[in-house]
Amino acid sequence: MFDALKRLVVGRPLRSDRLSEQLLAKRIALPVFASDPLSSVAYATQEILLVLALGGLAYLYLAPWIGLAVIVLLAVVVLSYRQVVRAYPSGGGSYEVATTNLGPSAGLVVAAALLVDYIMTVAVSVAAGVDNIISAFPDLNPWRVPINLGFVALLTAMNLRGVRESGRIFAVPTYLFVLGVLALIVTGFVRIAFGDAPVAESASWSIMPEPGHVGLTGLTLIFLALRAFSSGCTALTGAEAISNGVPAFKPPKGENAARTMAAMGLLSITMFGGITALALIAKVRYVENPCDLVGFPGDCTSEAQRTVIAQLAAAVFGGTSSPMFFFIQAATALILILAANTAFNGFPLLGSILAEHRYLPRQLHTRGDRLAFSNGILLLALVAGALIYAYKGSVTSLIQLYILGVFTSFTLSQVGMVRHWNRLLRTERDPARRRRMHRSRIINAFGACFTGLVLVIVTITKFTHGAYLVVIAIPILFVMMRGIRRHYDRVAEELTPDPGGMVLPSRIHAVVLVSRLHRPTIRALAYARATRPDTLTALTVAITPEEVRQLEAEWDEHDIPVPLTLVDSPYRDITGSVLRFIARLHKEQPRDLIAVYIPEYVVGRWWEHLLHNQSALRLKARLLFQRGVMVISVPWQLESSHADTRRAEDLREPARPTR
Amino acid sequence: MFDALKRLVVGRPLRSDRLSEQLLAKRIALPVFASDPLSSVAYATQEILLVLALGGLAYLYLAPWIGLAVIVLLAVVVLSYRQVVRAYPSGGGSYEVATTNLGPSAGLVVAAALLVDYIMTVAVSVAAGVDNIISAFPDLNPWRVPINLGFVALLTAMNLRGVRESGRIFAVPTYLFVLGVLALIVTGFVRIAFGDAPVAESASWSIMPEPGHVGLTGLTLIFLALRAFSSGCTALTGAEAISNGVPAFKPPKGENAARTMAAMGLLSITMFGGITALALIAKVRYVENPCDLVGFPGDCTSEAQRTVIAQLAAAVFGGTSSPMFFFIQAATALILILAANTAFNGFPLLGSILAEHRYLPRQLHTRGDRLAFSNGILLLALVAGALIYAYKGSVTSLIQLYILGVFTSFTLSQVGMVRHWNRLLRTERDPARRRRMHRSRIINAFGACFTGLVLVIVTITKFTHGAYLVVIAIPILFVMMRGIRRHYDRVAEELTPDPGGMVLPSRIHAVVLVSRLHRPTIRALAYARATRPDTLTALTVAITPEEVRQLEAEWDEHDIPVPLTLVDSPYRDITGSVLRFIARLHKEQPRDLIAVYIPEYVVGRWWEHLLHNQSALRLKARLLFQRGVMVISVPWQLESSHADTRRAEDLREPARPTR
Repeated sequence: MFDALKRLVVGRPLRSDRLSEQLLAKRIALPVFASDPLSSVAYATQEILLVLALGGLAYLYLAPWIGLAVIVLLAVVVLSYRQVVRAYPSGGGSYEVATTNLGPSAGLVVAAALLVDYIMTVAVSVAAGVDNIISAFPDLNPWRVPINLGFVALLTAMNLRGVRESGRIFAVPTYLFVLGVLALIVTGFVRIAFGDAPVAESASWSIMPEPGHVGLTGLTLIFLALRAFSSGCTALTGAEAISNGVPAFKPPKGENAARTMAAMGLLSITMFGGITALALIAKVRYVENPCDLVGFPGDCTSEAQRTVIAQLAAAVFGGTSSPMFFFIQAATALILILAANTAFNGFPLLGSILAEHRYLPRQLHTRGDRLAFSNGILLLALVAGALIYAYKGSVTSLIQLYILGVFTSFTLSQVGMVRHWNRLLRTERDPARRRRMHRSRIINAFGACFTGLVLVIVTITKFTHGAYLVVIAIPILFVMMRGIRRHYDRVAEELTPDPGGMVLPSRIHAVVLVSRLHRPTIRALAYARATRPDTLTALTVAITPEEVRQLEAEWDEHDIPVPLTLVDSPYRDITGSVLRFIARLHKEQPRDLIAVYIPEYVVGRWWEHLLHNQSALRLKARLLFQRGVMVISVPWQLESSHADTRRAEDLREPARPTR
Repeated sequence: MFDALKRLVVGRPLRSDRLSEQLLAKRIALPVFASDPLSSVAYATQEILLVLALGGLAYLYLAPWIGLAVIVLLAVVVLSYRQVVRAYPSGGGSYEVATTNLGPSAGLVVAAALLVDYIMTVAVSVAAGVDNIISAFPDLNPWRVPINLGFVALLTAMNLRGVRESGRIFAVPTYLFVLGVLALIVTGFVRIAFGDAPVAESASWSIMPEPGHVGLTGLTLIFLALRAFSSGCTALTGAEAISNGVPAFKPPKGENAARTMAAMGLLSITMFGGITALALIAKVRYVENPCDLVGFPGDCTSEAQRTVIAQLAAAVFGGTSSPMFFFIQAATALILILAANTAFNGFPLLGSILAEHRYLPRQLHTRGDRLAFSNGILLLALVAGALIYAYKGSVTSLIQLYILGVFTSFTLSQVGMVRHWNRLLRTERDPARRRRMHRSRIINAFGACFTGLVLVIVTITKFTHGAYLVVIAIPILFVMMRGIRRHYDRVAEELTPDPGGMVLPSRIHAVVLVSRLHRPTIRALAYARATRPDTLTALTVAITPEEVRQLEAEWDEHDIPVPLTLVDSPYRDITGSVLRFIARLHKEQPRDLIAVYIPEYVVGRWWEHLLHNQSALRLKARLLFQRGVMVISVPWQLESSHADTRRAEDLREPARPTR
């Protein structure tokens, strides 16, 4: 039944050799990997306005400058990352750059930061998408969290089906969103040019400033501006997704990825700039708590404000019931929810690379039935879902944990790129190439300084608002990954074969465990004898005298040619008694091998397990800790297990040795 | 850590040979097994008054007659059951009587009824006990359910520690309760004799009759009286506990149990009669919903009425702050909660007997560390706790599910006893003994008729009030137990050895599963070679060409004398590929034995499991369904597993064969 459900959700398994078919053309790769940075224009402007609104309407004059700073930063980051994807087309992205140039520890910091940020991308994007759905249908507000979790589940299912299909599905809404927003901006500016500037529904509302935010000057004003800038930097998130996804591009991978990056950057800047300008002209008001809005209609404790993009769409296209309003909201919600897909592509890929480098459990490196890294997808969905649940789906709360990780990885990878060019310049002699390298180095050095500065600003301005959790989480992840690596290294060293050949044990002692004399026991005794061991013991644990007497009678009756050995168990602890017997045997003959035969019966239905003691299972687990022992399960298939046997024999194709 | 916690709660294991020490003297057995019927006087009167109060104060004149009927029934049941414990001292009680004389189906009906009733005993008694605590400390009302569940947990822990200790603990409060109630009755009647009759706090309150219960005549009046009588019959519950507990008595078991039964009956009748008479004289008012009380002080929606026994204690001993009031409440609460202990003794014992007869999973027949039937205790606690939680700890709601089971088993066992005497009379010739048997038969026949009648009355009057759940549960249990028995019988038949000796397989093919060439693999190959099989295959599943190439290189480098066999796995399904290989091998040589060697590494810490694929485990489970296969685990203990090995080797005492 579980199998049937899995087939329904995930689809039938794909052959390994279909892996290469799953590569993405640029026009598909753009929506798959760039939906995150593109979609973030839907909330970046809003977050800037929200912070500035803490001081009422007084500081809105800062907004254009903050918007401009974000645009410059965006341009710098895109230019820097175009260098990364060209120089490191293998898909490690920032992680690979930092590892190669700054050493494994720096790489691991980047990896931890990126993992956290992929999770936040899913949480923030889905929450913002649902926010826009609720802007169009305010009655859905009470079901905010379940709707959020439903979308996470949907994304999980889509990604478990595999990269290619999800790419195709996600291409359409991304393009619809881009077209919609561009239409919004163009229509808005045309109306402005004709003197009919759009006016937002909230334009007439006033804002009550928060206590402590009135009449700021000097440092405190700068701090507010920097905090608004930090919030606006959410427009930057997701830029690294392309650099981690290079292997999924069609060749020439590096060049195609760089071009996709440029297209993404251009679109982002146009859309973010346009929306911010329009929002200021249309006088959109947006605050953290609707009760601070003087003029807000309805109950400010239970109803939500419309998002900035919703207010603009309504203002530009003629109200909240015009078809274009619904189109923009639908496209925005869709691209936001699908932006989470960027992380659903990036997180499992990075996880699998880290698993390959033995920093994460190797299950993350296993491809599932549909060639996707299923375990990474499930892990991401689980953690992001938990965060959404914990923060009740609030974009503003979740966004505080965001972008700290992005800028950590931005900064470290740009520093790494500078060292990369330094290294190359040491050996390169061709003047034209040296010139290009010099130019690249300048871009990356500038990027490193700029993103480093932003990292400091973001950490300071957001620390007390929730970012401290990330400041804790990244080191924990770092230490955990180092620990996992150390474990795998230690195990690998322990398991490395000695140069010599194999040493055979001198003698084999077979011990058959007997509880009653039924057919599984007789089969186990027969199998044990067939291996011709040096000694053969039939061992039973005496719990009650009656059981022992009965067993001895049966033994004599069936004329079993193996003598029965009895150990007492005054505490009714079968497992312990057997373990002590085996341990003693091992101590007497440490160089010999003890083969413990356990007769088991195999049942077919789950509830039948409840009707049989699990002592054999427990005993097997404990025996594996003993030295010089091998544990042999001799199964007896009960009638009820036949259905399963048939299923097992009726597998897709016969396996034949290929040589 | 789990071990340490278990030791703390349960205590250290007891040796099997200490089992006989755990027998109970009469003075201990009385409180252990009779606390249930004794304690039920604390709510039986209350339930009678509650039903009669549905018609306001008009029908209270029926109360004395109903009380009398309950007393007669009590006497009849006690007399009947004295015959049972004498005739069947082995502890099967009603179950054994019904099985022996009426056949296994009747016995199974009784068993199902008793299991349900033991569960209800725990739920009702604990709920009533907490009710009396809340009567003394009304502020605890909001924490009713958690307090209930806490007591269930406490009882569970006590019983897991073993019979003897729990007996001693429970003796004192039972005796305190008996003394307290007798003192209450004597003081009350002395005051009446001196013309200073006690007056309950509720004596002046009036009761609003429920609609449809005013001016009843004829059949409807009789129905109300019968419903009140049904509720009063809760005083009867637990009478069968002694008959199920006979083996725990000191010899002569039957006679001691019969005497304990008589003492219990006498005490029950005195206490129930006294309390009912006092309650009527002191004019105690008690209703289902306090809002029907005209004159109830305080908020009738959130506050609870005092129990009948609390009102009497307050009236007789001078108010709700007198020391004797608190003493009576404490003793009542204690005995009620400990009455649940009757079920904690009876349920696991009956469960173990049913398990021995293969009607329930055999785990219920296993004695735990402290010689108690731990699994039965835990099962009981779980189900009773769930019921208390579902019914929010309301005595009146829970009591509706009660006593249907009791009277089912009463009736069937008394009918069985009649047939028992009929059978004995057919062969008995001694006139004195025949006379005794005739007398016994009359007692049991009368008991059967009376309890049968009560069963019909209870079913009719309580059906719509919740008893229908029991009418559903008992048949479901019956069918389930029959199904379990059928499963065990079928398995036993399948496992019965053929008369011939053992047939050795003609040849052995060893297959060693190889993923990489590390020390566990080399050890598995060495062990496999040491058993000198007829053929030896090193099998690997090809997932990626690189892995295969690497493995082949290592193979050559270490000069392994076994050739490597390769099967393809286009769907990356290792388990399926191995299974198909083995299935093909088996089809080619069906009479041969295939020994599959699986190298495994054993880790010591729980989290290390997460770092290694569980594919070996999955594969082992699936291989057990294949015919002609034995599965051999070759463990390699990693460094981290040593702590566990030491623990395993450092067990209490060395196991030596006793012959």
